Amino acid sequence: MDLKELGEFGLIEEIKKGIEVPEGYLGIGDDCAVMPQKSGMETLVSTDMLIEGTHFLMDDISAYRLGWKSAAVNISDIAAMGGRCTGSFLSFALPKGLGKEWTDEFFRGYKEISAIYGCPLLGGDTTSSPDRLCISVTVTGEAPAGKSVKRSNAAIGDLICVTGNLGDSGCGLKLILEGCERDADAEKLIARHYLPMPRVKEGMEIAAAGASAMMDISDGIGSDLRHILKESGVGAVVDTGSIPVSDEMKRKCAQMGWDALEIATSGGEDYELLFTISPENEKRVAVGHHIIGKIVPGNGIEWKGNEDKNYMGYRHF
Amino acid sequence: MDLKELGEFGLIEEIKKGIEVPEGYLGIGDDCAVMPQKSGMETLVSTDMLIEGTHFLMDDISAYRLGWKSAAVNISDIAAMGGRCTGSFLSFALPKGLGKEWTDEFFRGYKEISAIYGCPLLGGDTTSSPDRLCISVTVTGEAPAGKSVKRSNAAIGDLICVTGNLGDSGCGLKLILEGCERDADAEKLIARHYLPMPRVKEGMEIAAAGASAMMDISDGIGSDLRHILKESGVGAVVDTGSIPVSDEMKRKCAQMGWDALEIATSGGEDYELLFTISPENEKRVAVGHHIIGKIVPGNGIEWKGNEDKNYMGYRHF
Repeated sequence: MDLKELGEFGLIEEIKKGIEVPEGYLGIGDDCAVMPQKSGMETLVSTDMLIEGTHFLMDDISAYRLGWKSAAVNISDIAAMGGRCTGSFLSFALPKGLGKEWTDEFFRGYKEISAIYGCPLLGGDTTSSPDRLCISVTVTGEAPAGKSVKRSNAAIGDLICVTGNLGDSGCGLKLILEGCERDADAEKLIARHYLPMPRVKEGMEIAAAGASAMMDISDGIGSDLRHILKESGVGAVVDTGSIPVSDEMKRKCAQMGWDALEIATSGGEDYELLFTISPENEKRVAVGHHIIGKIVPGNGIEWKGNEDKNYMGYRHF
Repeated sequence: MDLKELGEFGLIEEIKKGIEVPEGYLGIGDDCAVMPQKSGMETLVSTDMLIEGTHFLMDDISAYRLGWKSAAVNISDIAAMGGRCTGSFLSFALPKGLGKEWTDEFFRGYKEISAIYGCPLLGGDTTSSPDRLCISVTVTGEAPAGKSVKRSNAAIGDLICVTGNLGDSGCGLKLILEGCERDADAEKLIARHYLPMPRVKEGMEIAAAGASAMMDISDGIGSDLRHILKESGVGAVVDTGSIPVSDEMKRKCAQMGWDALEIATSGGEDYELLFTISPENEKRVAVGHHIIGKIVPGNGIEWKGNEDKNYMGYRHF
C-alpha cells in the first residue's frame, strides 16, 4: 500500500496501535508527550541518528531489524547510566519508494524491543525525504537522583569489567561486508550485529552495587574505555587474555585468519556495558560480568599480553 | 576549516562552548543527559526533523537562520502545552561540503534562541551524511502536574483565540518561492518566516488563566483548528473578519493580488498559539490575543463572512 493513500494521520494511527502508554502519561497525538515527575528521581535523555548510506544500507538490513536496532542503540545509553527506560520518540524521513509493508515491518521490530524494555513510543515526527531514509530516536529514562553512573568517577585500584562477550557484532558486520558464507556461526554473529539486546537490568544492578563509572560499548573498548579514562583522569591496564570472546567468534576468526583481539577491542556495536568498580563493590554485582583489567595512575591503555599493539576502537570520521 | 581536521570530538568541544547548564543537570558528554525531577511537575517532550530538500533549501536559508528555526519549531511545541523549556537535544548528519564556518553560524543561531528561551543544549548526535543535511531536535520542558494544556478539552461556548497576526510567515515563504522583489514589507515578512519567536511566556499565562485547549499554529488554523475540534468532539464558527493580519501582509497581498485570508488560514509556520477558553477565563488572559470565533456543537469549521470557502491549512503529503 502506498503511504500517500494512507496519509500522514493514517500512518500515525497505524503507529499508535499496540503501544501501552502508562497511566498518567500522554503519548502520541498532541504537541508534546507528557510524563509525570517524581521527587527523588532524575530524568535521563539520549538521542541517536541513523542515516541510510552512513549507518546502514537498505539492501543489507531488513525493515524489522532496522526498527529493532534504532530503538536498541538508545535504550543501551539508558542502560549505560544504570537507568530504566520511560519512553521513546521516533522521527523519520521516508523516501518515496517505501510503502506500508516496509513501515509495518519497521514498527514491528521497533515495538517488539520497546515492549521488552518497557519503553513505550510516546511521540515523534513523520516526514518525507527526497531520497535517503533518515531516522532519529530519543529515549528517556530515569534513575534515583544522584545515582546515574557517569564516565568521570573511575578511581585508581578499581576493576575494569564488561557484561558479556566482545566483538561478536563487529565480527558479524565483517562477515556481511566481506560477503562470507553464512554458516550457523556466521548467522549467530550477524544476529548479534542486527538484534542487540541492551543490558538495562544489568546496568541497574551494577549501578546499585556501586560502580564508579559506566558506559555502553558502541565503538569497541579500544575507543570507549579511553572516554572513561579521559573523563576520570586515570589510566588502565587491560589483560588481553581476559577479554571475553564467544566460541562462534573464535572459530570464525581462526577459519578466516582474522585477529579476534582486534575485532573484540575495535569492532564496535556490542552494546555490552563497560564499567569500573572497587574490588569490594565488585563482589556485590549480582549479574554476569568479566574482569578485564584495572584502573592505574597515568593515562591511556596498556594492553597486557599484547604490549606492541594499541587498539583504538572504531573511527567515525 | 575542514571538519575532518577538527574531528568529531573537536566539534563537540566547540558546540559545548557558551552553554549554561543549570545546577544539578548533566549536559553534553556522557551517555545521557541528566535532569532532576520535582514532584508536582510533569515533563514535556517534543521532537521534529528537518530534511534538506523537504523542509529547506541550502541556497535559501542561512546557517544562522536554520539553527534558529531548528530550535524554534520545538520550543513552540512546549509553548503550546503552556510549559517552560528545560533543555534541547540536537542531532545532525552533515554532508561533506559543509565546513566549520557553516557549523559555527548554525550554532550561533541555535544557541541565541536557546539562550532567549532558557533552553540549554544538553546533548545530541553528530554524524555524517552522504549528501543531504538532516537535522533532528528534541526539546524537553515542564509544567505543573496536570496543568499542561492538551487539544482535547475545548467546550461548547468557549472562545477561539490566537496570540498574534496570522499568515506573515506563509506570505514570507511565498515571496521567497516566487522570487519577488524584497522591499521593506517583504523583508519583515521573510524574517517572520525564518526567525519565528515562539510564544512560551504567553503559553504559560494562557495555561494559568485556564485555557481549555491549546496548540501552536504550524500548518495554518485551517488545519490546526481541526485537530482541536476532532480531539474535543466539537465544531467551530470562525469570524473571518476577526482574523488578525499585519499591515505588511495586507499591503503585500493587495500589491500581488494574493488572497490574504487563504494565506492567513493555510500558510503555516506562524508559531502563534491557538487556544480555546471560556468567556470568564478569557478575561484573565494577561497577554495580547485576538478572539476569532467560538466553539459550537457539531464538527468542522464554518468560516463566517466567507461561507463559500473551506480553508484546509498546509498539506504535507
